[in-house]
Amino acid sequence: MSSNLLERFVPAVGWMRRYQMSDLPGDITAGLTVAVMLIPQGMAYAMLAGLPPIVGLYASIVPLAIYALLGTSRQLAVGPVAMVSLMVASSVGAMAQPGSDQYVALAVVLALMVGVMQAGMGLLKLGFLVRFLSHPVISGFTSAAALIIGLSQLKHLLGVKLPRTHHIHEIIIEAFAHIQDWNWIALGMGAVSIALLLGLKKFSPRAPGALIVVAGATLVTWLFGLEQGGLSVVGEVPAGLPMPSLPSFSLTQLGELAPTAIAISLVAFMESISVAKAFAAREGYKVDADQELRALGLSNVAAAFFGGYTVTGGFSRTAVNGQAGAKTGLASLITAGAIAVALLTITPLFAWLPNTVLSAIVMAAVFGLIDIKEVVHLWKVRKGDLLQLVLTFAATLAFGIEIGIGVGVGFSLLQIIWRSASPVIAKLGRLPGTTFWRDTQRIDGLQTYDDVVVLRLDARLYFANIARLEQEIDKTQADANRHVVLDCGGMNDIDTSALALLEELAVSQHSRGVTLSLARVKAAVRDQLKAAHFKLPIEVYDSVEVAVRTAREESCADLPVNTDDSDDGQVSNGQAA
Amino acid sequence: MSSNLLERFVPAVGWMRRYQMSDLPGDITAGLTVAVMLIPQGMAYAMLAGLPPIVGLYASIVPLAIYALLGTSRQLAVGPVAMVSLMVASSVGAMAQPGSDQYVALAVVLALMVGVMQAGMGLLKLGFLVRFLSHPVISGFTSAAALIIGLSQLKHLLGVKLPRTHHIHEIIIEAFAHIQDWNWIALGMGAVSIALLLGLKKFSPRAPGALIVVAGATLVTWLFGLEQGGLSVVGEVPAGLPMPSLPSFSLTQLGELAPTAIAISLVAFMESISVAKAFAAREGYKVDADQELRALGLSNVAAAFFGGYTVTGGFSRTAVNGQAGAKTGLASLITAGAIAVALLTITPLFAWLPNTVLSAIVMAAVFGLIDIKEVVHLWKVRKGDLLQLVLTFAATLAFGIEIGIGVGVGFSLLQIIWRSASPVIAKLGRLPGTTFWRDTQRIDGLQTYDDVVVLRLDARLYFANIARLEQEIDKTQADANRHVVLDCGGMNDIDTSALALLEELAVSQHSRGVTLSLARVKAAVRDQLKAAHFKLPIEVYDSVEVAVRTAREESCADLPVNTDDSDDGQVSNGQAA
Repeated sequence: MSSNLLERFVPAVGWMRRYQMSDLPGDITAGLTVAVMLIPQGMAYAMLAGLPPIVGLYASIVPLAIYALLGTSRQLAVGPVAMVSLMVASSVGAMAQPGSDQYVALAVVLALMVGVMQAGMGLLKLGFLVRFLSHPVISGFTSAAALIIGLSQLKHLLGVKLPRTHHIHEIIIEAFAHIQDWNWIALGMGAVSIALLLGLKKFSPRAPGALIVVAGATLVTWLFGLEQGGLSVVGEVPAGLPMPSLPSFSLTQLGELAPTAIAISLVAFMESISVAKAFAAREGYKVDADQELRALGLSNVAAAFFGGYTVTGGFSRTAVNGQAGAKTGLASLITAGAIAVALLTITPLFAWLPNTVLSAIVMAAVFGLIDIKEVVHLWKVRKGDLLQLVLTFAATLAFGIEIGIGVGVGFSLLQIIWRSASPVIAKLGRLPGTTFWRDTQRIDGLQTYDDVVVLRLDARLYFANIARLEQEIDKTQADANRHVVLDCGGMNDIDTSALALLEELAVSQHSRGVTLSLARVKAAVRDQLKAAHFKLPIEVYDSVEVAVRTAREESCADLPVNTDDSDDGQVSNGQAA
Repeated sequence: MSSNLLERFVPAVGWMRRYQMSDLPGDITAGLTVAVMLIPQGMAYAMLAGLPPIVGLYASIVPLAIYALLGTSRQLAVGPVAMVSLMVASSVGAMAQPGSDQYVALAVVLALMVGVMQAGMGLLKLGFLVRFLSHPVISGFTSAAALIIGLSQLKHLLGVKLPRTHHIHEIIIEAFAHIQDWNWIALGMGAVSIALLLGLKKFSPRAPGALIVVAGATLVTWLFGLEQGGLSVVGEVPAGLPMPSLPSFSLTQLGELAPTAIAISLVAFMESISVAKAFAAREGYKVDADQELRALGLSNVAAAFFGGYTVTGGFSRTAVNGQAGAKTGLASLITAGAIAVALLTITPLFAWLPNTVLSAIVMAAVFGLIDIKEVVHLWKVRKGDLLQLVLTFAATLAFGIEIGIGVGVGFSLLQIIWRSASPVIAKLGRLPGTTFWRDTQRIDGLQTYDDVVVLRLDARLYFANIARLEQEIDKTQADANRHVVLDCGGMNDIDTSALALLEELAVSQHSRGVTLSLARVKAAVRDQLKAAHFKLPIEVYDSVEVAVRTAREESCADLPVNTDDSDDGQVSNGQAA
């Protein structure tokens, strides 16, 4: 394998070979800082996923090392994230009892499936698929997921049992129905934690907030023996590092998990690639979407083999990694090492770590994702895009996250089709004293004629919008007009259905004594007209001005050599073949 | 109700009020000619639908009168048609035994549902929905349906039992497996009928072929007593006219029939509106799609109340109606009357009418619908459209007609999305001696610069294709270029996802010392840029020439007042706000 090819598939070869010692302090600081964040977050997100907290730590060692070797981002911090954890909970939760061995086994299999799918998508170069997630859909989905995630943690914060559901009103009603069972110590500790986390984030963004509340709460619990008073704690966990093992699964399970695995593969990749691209742009290098898919895929396969669950690149830890000075994948290797050391040393302390604090960490993290500003922005700029956001948000709350994102993507694509099916058709007039033809709706005082109508269609012409053009031409029939000139300067393409209907249209106009001519036909459309052997009473002109003058039998002698700026490269006047 | 509004909802008021006696001979001839065609065809198509032949005649009286009063087409001949009959057979056939009372009752309910849906779609002005059926999809669907319809009649032609399936190979294999059971008289009579029908169509298109073979076969059967020798005949039918009755149904049935009812509503309307529009164009009048939906809808409601099944406007009888001189809906009223008279007089003759002849009529009618020429045409003009045809054809044969048309529509819409997601991005160069910038791929010898890259995107810019633009701009980074000029002359729209990414792109280019500027921005896009308060290192110019010269710090003094033909109405040089 050539060194170039090796570097393409194992990008670490590149940064290791060219490693500069000046990057070392930044990499070490960043690696350790992220580890300090990841220990409490990994446990909190695992709990959100319905898994024992230790699984979040298992997912934070080998997968990080794999990504450090294979990933093309130098700052991306891989590990458990909130959105993916919620998706794991909602799918595996329907198949097994949260916290049970079977539940853990299914989550591991799911990570394996996601890994294989992502790696496969990377090999098939399907990275482009994330393009079909529009910003408003992502924003609506994220806000709704944040609400669902946040409220799913209420049970730990209140210390009561609540239903696992995406119907947030049910959770709230149930919570108040059990107000007599609330554990006020859990609630108080959780509330203080959230206040501390938000306060530190605002006033001291570099402080390791999660670590501070976790350490503080553990200390308080130990001091006052709160865990004996009914405060729910993480408790005893198996000591030591995760050992490699083969995930076991049945084909039925694979079938049941497949739809979620596809959804998670895409959502996880989307989150990861967005943040990776943002940092790459800032640092002036490029990430390769398909290699990212392969790297994340193999990280997830590794997660499955080492008893972890699905990981991906997350927003918040990547930001910290970058700010703390990470310059290469070495930072992630250091994080992985630090987590491993932690697993070997501090797990006995989990006997006094209250679950409510981990829930507080999740809640403080996700409520910041609810994006009200985007709603205001879209309302001002483009209400159709706001509709994407609102619909995705509502569908996610009403039908759950997999269906919610599906509805959003489906709607945004239908909108694209709808827009191209109902194109703007402008009636043009001549700008006095020039040969330019402009939209009469936008500019006053344009020169128009009774016997010639000039229309401009700003869209590709195809089966779904040709009827709109037909309608518009029909509307002109009431007038005295005998000529229709169609300005094709904005028409980027034409399909065979449109060609056939255009031919029909020209024939039916011709039978009524109305001529139809085309002006400023682009090269791509001209090619199609030629291939279709378009033999009909329709003429094609370089410019609107020439088409109009020819229709009115006026001279074109005073026109300059070329009056338009179309792309066909023809510089002659008059009719083109 | 004003007379105008009355005429809009009951178009017959118009032609009745203005009826000219000179139209009467044509209307009478056409009405009787269509009746002569419709008697055998109505029975044949009812048989194709799995119904007793008489149901086809019941569907050919009142529905025709209703359409004559409400329809906006003056030539459209409404009644049973092959495609809809097949769809009835495939849906009702899954719920009841063909020919049974329950089967007939379900077909009647289906007609009621289709009628209510079509009328409702007409009131909601949903006539535009048929636009989403592209020509290639219709062609592929029709060809496949013709094959399925034709082969479904083989059992009558051979006089053996064959499976009801859309898998044509199964039918053929089964047919030959039962070769020892073939009824050679039925086969001979059917073959002669097909030969006669095709021969007459070719050499004497005005002869009533169907009537001739039906009368001849009935006579031969009676003469030789063939029905006693095992030749299957229509047999005894209840005499007299259909009496109005309320269709009875359960909610479960409605639920089961709903998907087919939707598919039939659309397919039937599509067939009807295409032929109605073609004739209206030829005769120089207009049909109103929404009124057509209401007229067909009420015709189907009437069909249900008079013991008929789903009707629509068909290709062949409408052609005959028009050629025979129909000028108003009176022709259809005469057809309806003639069918009623026939029901009162000739039904006893059905005791000698062989089923094989009715099947021959169906087969001769539909095999002409298989369109090979379209395949050749699409291959030459546009292979992407051919793919629509082939996929629809294959899906219809493989999965049946409802799924087939769904696959076709879905694929053609995905193709639209795919095309807009992968737009043409051309690298431009200056046409020497001019200020026009053209595609360097299409024209040789264009003038380009090392330090300025000019790209043109021929599509709306939105979430799914902004990444393509980003890629293309990235590709230029390897060169010495310091400026990217984006020609937006073909960009008809921009969404908020694209605005956000364009901003990101401009920032990341800026950080590398590359400037990004836009030229020839259309008014619609300019409005969006303004609304978004686009504050970024990006400049907007009227023309590519000015953008390039400004980037290279050259003078624009020698340029004419306006160098482009964009539609923003700005005639000044230099930078626009």
